[in-house]
Amino acid sequence: MHVLLVYAHPEPQSLNGALKDFTVKRLEAAGHTVQVSDLYAMQWKATLDADDTLERKDGEPFHPERDSKHAFENGLQTPDIAREQDKLRWADAVILQFPMWWFSMPAILKGWVERVYAYGFGYGVGEHSDTRWGNRYGEGTLAGKRAMLIVTAGGWESHYSPRGINGPIDDLLFPIQHGILYYPGFDVLPPYVVYRTGRTDETRFSTICDALGHRLDDLWKTLPIPFHPQNAGAYDIPECTLRADITPGEVGFAAHVAPPALRVAAKG
Amino acid sequence: MHVLLVYAHPEPQSLNGALKDFTVKRLEAAGHTVQVSDLYAMQWKATLDADDTLERKDGEPFHPERDSKHAFENGLQTPDIAREQDKLRWADAVILQFPMWWFSMPAILKGWVERVYAYGFGYGVGEHSDTRWGNRYGEGTLAGKRAMLIVTAGGWESHYSPRGINGPIDDLLFPIQHGILYYPGFDVLPPYVVYRTGRTDETRFSTICDALGHRLDDLWKTLPIPFHPQNAGAYDIPECTLRADITPGEVGFAAHVAPPALRVAAKG
Repeated sequence: MHVLLVYAHPEPQSLNGALKDFTVKRLEAAGHTVQVSDLYAMQWKATLDADDTLERKDGEPFHPERDSKHAFENGLQTPDIAREQDKLRWADAVILQFPMWWFSMPAILKGWVERVYAYGFGYGVGEHSDTRWGNRYGEGTLAGKRAMLIVTAGGWESHYSPRGINGPIDDLLFPIQHGILYYPGFDVLPPYVVYRTGRTDETRFSTICDALGHRLDDLWKTLPIPFHPQNAGAYDIPECTLRADITPGEVGFAAHVAPPALRVAAKG
Repeated sequence: MHVLLVYAHPEPQSLNGALKDFTVKRLEAAGHTVQVSDLYAMQWKATLDADDTLERKDGEPFHPERDSKHAFENGLQTPDIAREQDKLRWADAVILQFPMWWFSMPAILKGWVERVYAYGFGYGVGEHSDTRWGNRYGEGTLAGKRAMLIVTAGGWESHYSPRGINGPIDDLLFPIQHGILYYPGFDVLPPYVVYRTGRTDETRFSTICDALGHRLDDLWKTLPIPFHPQNAGAYDIPECTLRADITPGEVGFAAHVAPPALRVAAKG
């Protein structure tokens, strides 16, 4: 299989650097082909702006959506953007690996998403009608591919627990797992998270690699997070709110994950 | 009063550009002094890396926390970072204004947070002991100042409602409002959010400005979101989990906002 690892850490001699190397080796040893987008090493341009479109008319106001659509449709994207889109098309699975900085991904990775997810590629795909609101959340350009996060955090696991002060890790990652990965169609696997990274001696590093190794071995077996697809009946369109009979009364991020009963029903 | 507006949109001739100009005028007309950090116009460096520390030893691995601490303590930060910290110290209120891109702030603004919030300034402040876990979440360098978000979103308001497919807006903004603003001490006001920005004619723009104007007029009167302070008794330390008798059983982001009963008790 083809795996794309999008990796965002500034220092190769770091826990993240070591986990990246481990991940590549483990996947290659299992017979997979791996490409790494090492964003810091590539000096990835983090900022979405008018320079992302070749041959722009001078003086015309830059409109992020319209310019992106125009560039994508007419082969006027900068080569760095087109190259990453090609890697995504090539991949069967995509891993985003990053340290949690201020409860989200580093800016350089956020800028990768903003620039690579062009209009017509990452969003703005499919028809909007009375029954469909675009090909998104379970459908889209990247449907049929798998995605997984590898995340490191300095804080303790309890700080990210259901009543932890930082907020539960699943909720902190929802805008990425649901909003960035499920949106253009990925099947999203549960994340692999390492906490308290300041305390990583060799014994602990070996334990971390063991657990990560099993996750990588199971990349094609692990069940994805069962988010509700947008256009398959769980949502009223165009409001895009959960239908009244789907987990009635439940609100918030977790409501968009199908409970076990509904998963069985959907299979039957 | 002194207001710092940190603004992240690439095009002056946009809804965001117009709202930025409106905000500056309205605040100045009320007698406030305003500074604007127009990140795109400043060509703000979005990516945190070793170049953020002056006079680094060649060949030594870059460690984001340690290098940031060393630079902050020894006057070795790059001038762009030090300048933004000075603006934050100067400000009585800080407004972050941005378009919601992929359910979070644009990369350029995320990179402003990552670089300006140095160790010893934005985090790593105060003692860690059996009763305190640093000066954070309600205490810290920026305590006593107010902060507010002005956010634009292309999607419909219903898509961001409690059962909307994107997730509730309050939850999407929690990592910013709680994790980035409350963390170093800001009192965080409810956000001002504009939805469905693609449909903004002159009438609607005028309505939007009216509502925003009232929010700006009330910047010093509006009650902040009553997040629980970390070190005032609501959390077990060092686990940093909500004490068992605080909204028992409640989990998730909303659990960190004091319910009305507790707010009255806290005042009494």
